[in-house]
Amino acid sequence: MEIKVLQDIMESNKNVAAEVKELLLNKKVYMIDMMSSPGAGKTTLNDKIIDMMKSRYRIAVIEGDIKTTKDSERLAKHNIPIFQIETDRFGGDCHLESSWVKRCLEQFDLDNLDMVIVENVGNLVCPAEFQLGDDERIVVLSVAEGEDKPAKYPLIFNTSHTLVLNKIDLLPHLDYRMDEFFENLNRVNPLMKVFQVSAKTGEGVEALVKHISKNIDDKKS
Amino acid sequence: MEIKVLQDIMESNKNVAAEVKELLLNKKVYMIDMMSSPGAGKTTLNDKIIDMMKSRYRIAVIEGDIKTTKDSERLAKHNIPIFQIETDRFGGDCHLESSWVKRCLEQFDLDNLDMVIVENVGNLVCPAEFQLGDDERIVVLSVAEGEDKPAKYPLIFNTSHTLVLNKIDLLPHLDYRMDEFFENLNRVNPLMKVFQVSAKTGEGVEALVKHISKNIDDKKS
Repeated sequence: MEIKVLQDIMESNKNVAAEVKELLLNKKVYMIDMMSSPGAGKTTLNDKIIDMMKSRYRIAVIEGDIKTTKDSERLAKHNIPIFQIETDRFGGDCHLESSWVKRCLEQFDLDNLDMVIVENVGNLVCPAEFQLGDDERIVVLSVAEGEDKPAKYPLIFNTSHTLVLNKIDLLPHLDYRMDEFFENLNRVNPLMKVFQVSAKTGEGVEALVKHISKNIDDKKS
Repeated sequence: MEIKVLQDIMESNKNVAAEVKELLLNKKVYMIDMMSSPGAGKTTLNDKIIDMMKSRYRIAVIEGDIKTTKDSERLAKHNIPIFQIETDRFGGDCHLESSWVKRCLEQFDLDNLDMVIVENVGNLVCPAEFQLGDDERIVVLSVAEGEDKPAKYPLIFNTSHTLVLNKIDLLPHLDYRMDEFFENLNRVNPLMKVFQVSAKTGEGVEALVKHISKNIDDKKS
């Protein structure tokens, strides 16, 4: 019985995700689903990315949080369309669902956008199970979280395209075994594209921006 | 319909948690439900705590992970009873439920134990919703996760007794505003007991061990 209902939710989410995908294809808008543990640095990274890209691309953001509009406020200075989803208002959900994202997209002027960044709820588990209809799933992982995360949370790593290994400015102060991290990652998803960055200092972000820009251009052409 | 099922799950979890509580009261065994984001340092902290307490107290551990027995292996050197729950085997659940904990407790020789530490699945959202029947809920939060976590994930902070603010050895390398963190915390749970520690260097762990030891002694007497 419970499994039946769960499947219905999953099925419905999948169907709406397909609708979102088609909508974004028609409008030639590139969408990123950005996921991470709490505090891995998604908003700081987006702040940097938007800063570097906004002169060339028209960007909008969907912010997923359980509570507060803190992240939206941090990005408000860029003067771009931002839609905040506070899941606390409907049960404190630990992930975003495609229907909520669709509702947000309908509020944006998609004809005048090149990219939508969805900052998912900080959670390395549940968001992985809910496809949103995006073009690219990016996992942001802080080196402060340790080397074992791909082994312990395999689903999010093997259903995502790109990994941003963040906070590399902390590496001198951690006993981080990079080899071990890559061994763990390769066992779960050897095809994952990895960018080592510090969203704080900006180190490595340029390469990530190039990668995203190319993907936007490809979708436009 | 879906809500009905969800309530049933919650209700059933609550009932079993009450059974666990009674079992632990009869056996005078102290139980901690330790929760955190992925990579906040639960296992390193437990390693330290067990090392400092095992000569005086008989300790067992229940390790919750989606996948791998890595954390259990890290604690195996202490030669104490450890039970690993891999939620991947039953759907990849993002939290532990009281019935699984009860099943583990039934495998332990509770007459010869003083404390059980439950290391929950790394997740700052879902575990908060599932009471396990413990005596103390401890949230481990790494300073690398930022100052805003109590505001953004209020449920886990206002349903827990104790906060271990971990990785303070990184403070000199972060722009961490401790005042802002305490403001955020006090707004959500002004009664929360806070221990600032570095599980890596051992700094501050002594005070936490004293606090836990006192609670165990109180339950015994």
